[in-house]
Amino acid sequence: MKKRYLILLALSLCSSPTWAQKKVKHPKNIILMIGDGMGVSQIYAGMTGNFGQLNLERMPVVGFHKNQASNAFVTDSAAGATAFSCGVKTYNGAIGVDAAGNPLPTILEMAEENGLATGLIATCSITHATPASFISHQPSRSLDEDIAKDFLATDIDVFIGGGRKFFADRKDGLNLVDSLKSRNYQIAHSIEEVQQVKSGKLAAFLADEQQPRYSAGRGDQLVKSTETGLELLKTNKKGMFLMIEGSQIDWGGHGNDTQYIVEEMIDFDQAIGKVLDFAEKDGNTLVIITADHETGGFSVNKGDTKTGMVEGKFTTGSHTGVMIPVFAYGPGSEKFAGIYENNSIFHKMVEAFRFKK
Amino acid sequence: MKKRYLILLALSLCSSPTWAQKKVKHPKNIILMIGDGMGVSQIYAGMTGNFGQLNLERMPVVGFHKNQASNAFVTDSAAGATAFSCGVKTYNGAIGVDAAGNPLPTILEMAEENGLATGLIATCSITHATPASFISHQPSRSLDEDIAKDFLATDIDVFIGGGRKFFADRKDGLNLVDSLKSRNYQIAHSIEEVQQVKSGKLAAFLADEQQPRYSAGRGDQLVKSTETGLELLKTNKKGMFLMIEGSQIDWGGHGNDTQYIVEEMIDFDQAIGKVLDFAEKDGNTLVIITADHETGGFSVNKGDTKTGMVEGKFTTGSHTGVMIPVFAYGPGSEKFAGIYENNSIFHKMVEAFRFKK
Repeated sequence: MKKRYLILLALSLCSSPTWAQKKVKHPKNIILMIGDGMGVSQIYAGMTGNFGQLNLERMPVVGFHKNQASNAFVTDSAAGATAFSCGVKTYNGAIGVDAAGNPLPTILEMAEENGLATGLIATCSITHATPASFISHQPSRSLDEDIAKDFLATDIDVFIGGGRKFFADRKDGLNLVDSLKSRNYQIAHSIEEVQQVKSGKLAAFLADEQQPRYSAGRGDQLVKSTETGLELLKTNKKGMFLMIEGSQIDWGGHGNDTQYIVEEMIDFDQAIGKVLDFAEKDGNTLVIITADHETGGFSVNKGDTKTGMVEGKFTTGSHTGVMIPVFAYGPGSEKFAGIYENNSIFHKMVEAFRFKK
Repeated sequence: MKKRYLILLALSLCSSPTWAQKKVKHPKNIILMIGDGMGVSQIYAGMTGNFGQLNLERMPVVGFHKNQASNAFVTDSAAGATAFSCGVKTYNGAIGVDAAGNPLPTILEMAEENGLATGLIATCSITHATPASFISHQPSRSLDEDIAKDFLATDIDVFIGGGRKFFADRKDGLNLVDSLKSRNYQIAHSIEEVQQVKSGKLAAFLADEQQPRYSAGRGDQLVKSTETGLELLKTNKKGMFLMIEGSQIDWGGHGNDTQYIVEEMIDFDQAIGKVLDFAEKDGNTLVIITADHETGGFSVNKGDTKTGMVEGKFTTGSHTGVMIPVFAYGPGSEKFAGIYENNSIFHKMVEAFRFKK
């Protein structure tokens, strides 16, 4: 029996994922993908709208996180993202600071300190709560100009999103885009310009403030940004930390707009496909896909996987408290099974990277 | 796919529950627990109502099942349970028959054929769609008297639920309770009588038709029934298949009654605690916890884990289509990670038991 088991295991190692073949226990790269406001029904609406399947289904490990904020039963995106980025429960609105307002090192800053390449990609202003919480330390998410300034306090390699005005058209008269240029960032103002960058550092502003929704002109910018981000960051031999946000699933929930949710989910899933293609080939990459919270009290009441029709309903225009699924792939992925608090995702990532806290 | 499970198993052996320490690969016992209508929000409502924690959190492996029926986007409990019991997608209303109406062997019948002990426990009539689908083959869930008759076609060791009248007060004049007695079943009509049975076969009718809800007099009958069920079935050295249903979580959803959902969730979770205590001690038991579908389009909009307050909202009095979490513990549990169709739960159980199909 034991012999047969060992043979089976050996055989399985030959045709198993790259990272398992190589017996990689600790990833070189971590790619954290956050679908803002993406509860289970949002995922299922996207799956139904995409004719019954998603790239997300390629993820072998599943878990759930509980996401209360330090001061509220229902979290916002700031406290939700800070739990992931800094490992603490904090108050709603907090950006990279704990419940007492103290700044804490983020996983992106720790990656930088350890010599890894770092990046942030979002389909909203890059100063918005989710990306901001990985790079900035501010008492309130509303301080977009202060958050923009915090980007200059880091050595982030690539960031792609909206929010040009918080860098270039500021109340204090500073032009942070000039500062970025002087620090050797290539500046892009369109997805075409993003795609032209083949090496070096990149700061891309795809909108003055927020990008439009997928069907209102944004199109596949997230997929293309993801491709460029991976190309630029993978050249660092020590590895990378990259956070990619499908920002507007949340806005579909706030707007109680099922079609908005479906198109943003499918767009985010296209980016997931690109990331998984990279991770499967690379064999050294841990991919984590989750959300900060659910938005809309959304349910999938009718649908048709043949036509892609989805009929959703909502109980609120706000967030709800429900626990949120976590999907993981690659070396270290087994840590993400089970049910745990949202802030332990930070600690699991730090442990996977073997960073000293 | 199979390879991936072995990798996960190899990885999971690092953290060591009893079954992993013993290197048990195939369970002797499978206990399938179904919370009818239990979507993610129902679980989270129960968790909040129970001051922020559930026994369910002791489950290390998580997955999701997609649960469309063969003829409908949104499944009912009959097609949902038949997917688990027989391994096929069938039409809504079908009990243990495929989409063409053909009877198929159930996992309970296969267990019986392989010499294992078998049991069904529910907080509704034992002829209701979920338990019925594991032991009966009928074209429609509404045929309670025909379903009751099908119990006599099996050698099930223990069944505990409501539905006495479908056995004893029938239109065809048959008294199936007498038939059960003649086949050496001990008959119980109260939870006290259930608890007095210490060995042998047991048929327990705790209500003429449906039991009341937890707070309307049923109390902890499910927990006590679970304890007795485990005691009676564990004496079979070949193992057991036991299905335990928290039937009325669904009825709380249909009634758009948050308090009903919370109390039924906590009651079901108490039974989960008993099953996990048994499985942890035993080391040879695979526990699978899932639902057939979500009911109510339920969301948890406000709450307080200090006081146990839950404020939920609903989008419908019916079922919704959303995918459903699956939790697993024990030898073979690694098969239940990832996202898959509801009917593959049957095939995973058959594979875990090493039954020939």
